[in-house]
Amino acid sequence: MEEEFFGKLREKILPYFEGVNPCHDISHTERVLNLALAIGEEEGANLEILEVAVLLHDVARKEQDESRGTVCHAGRGGEMAKEILDELGYPLDKIEKVVHCIETHRFRKGNVPESVEAKVLYDSDKLDSIGAIGIGRAFSFSGYLGSHVHFLDLDLTDDEEYGEKDCAYREFLTKLLKVKDKMLTERGRELAEERHDFMVEFFDRINKEVGGEL
Amino acid sequence: MEEEFFGKLREKILPYFEGVNPCHDISHTERVLNLALAIGEEEGANLEILEVAVLLHDVARKEQDESRGTVCHAGRGGEMAKEILDELGYPLDKIEKVVHCIETHRFRKGNVPESVEAKVLYDSDKLDSIGAIGIGRAFSFSGYLGSHVHFLDLDLTDDEEYGEKDCAYREFLTKLLKVKDKMLTERGRELAEERHDFMVEFFDRINKEVGGEL
Repeated sequence: MEEEFFGKLREKILPYFEGVNPCHDISHTERVLNLALAIGEEEGANLEILEVAVLLHDVARKEQDESRGTVCHAGRGGEMAKEILDELGYPLDKIEKVVHCIETHRFRKGNVPESVEAKVLYDSDKLDSIGAIGIGRAFSFSGYLGSHVHFLDLDLTDDEEYGEKDCAYREFLTKLLKVKDKMLTERGRELAEERHDFMVEFFDRINKEVGGEL
Repeated sequence: MEEEFFGKLREKILPYFEGVNPCHDISHTERVLNLALAIGEEEGANLEILEVAVLLHDVARKEQDESRGTVCHAGRGGEMAKEILDELGYPLDKIEKVVHCIETHRFRKGNVPESVEAKVLYDSDKLDSIGAIGIGRAFSFSGYLGSHVHFLDLDLTDDEEYGEKDCAYREFLTKLLKVKDKMLTERGRELAEERHDFMVEFFDRINKEVGGEL
């Protein structure tokens, strides 16, 4: 029964990922799922609620991108998740728990993750933006925007995001360095510290390589 | 005089880099220059010939990309370099040395780098495709193509390049792993070995992260 439900759920979400930018495609959701199940087990989360929430957490990402940010994919994603789960006949009490995870996974406008499942989703989603995979995503996104691979003279005072002057190193300095301090679970924090250190090593290294030192 | 010449040369080449893919934009040329001067000094290269050759080595890259590969940017680049340097009144004997470097930097169809400057350009250009910067370029290129950040189920038997199924990990497995064995100078080989080891560590790590282990 559970397997059948997840099969149907996966079928339902796939169309929402068609044409989404490479950093938020379905493989991001799969990676977050791997992490969430590993962290969730250690944190004593309900793994069913967690898996459903992870699979649905980015269904509104395409709408957000297409709206140029006026739609919030967390809030809208919560609404869409409710509709999708209703159609699948998922129990209402569980739907509410899933929706809480999705609505709070962006942690903006006072939407604070309260349940352990919400905290695990939040941490797992953020963890995918740091470490080696975070580095890969940041460079991939800059290529997607047609920006340079690595700027030698980075202007951090210009705070325009996601333009041609964006690059992975800028993303690292302005955002990714702060991620480890936002973790909400113990295991998330441990993983984040370790991924953080690798990122720091990577960018230190790339700057030496670019200067012809390494 | 030399400074004035390089100023004019840099002005002349800039237009050829407008709209070039992010991996071969002018910042690639700047990085290759940093490396080439560092390696060239140790290898006893003529640094003037080397600098001119590096600055001009990718001027035909855009033509190659636009021709979908029917134009070879090494051969065509040699012709363009000759024209540009003629216009700047650069001495003919030096032009010949520069053209040899550019024509052989791709090392295909029997065009073997013979002079020390040609070998240093070849190594420096290849070195920019490995290590941390090589990783950055590979992800950036996959994003540029709109491909996934990292494939979980990579089909290496499908040898179609540069399509939606391309990704940095595939580039690593099929090409970047082989680069270190192609170096032509002693210092190039040392740098390549070290960059190679870091790349191996990076992809080993990313696979563990993607599986939720790290």
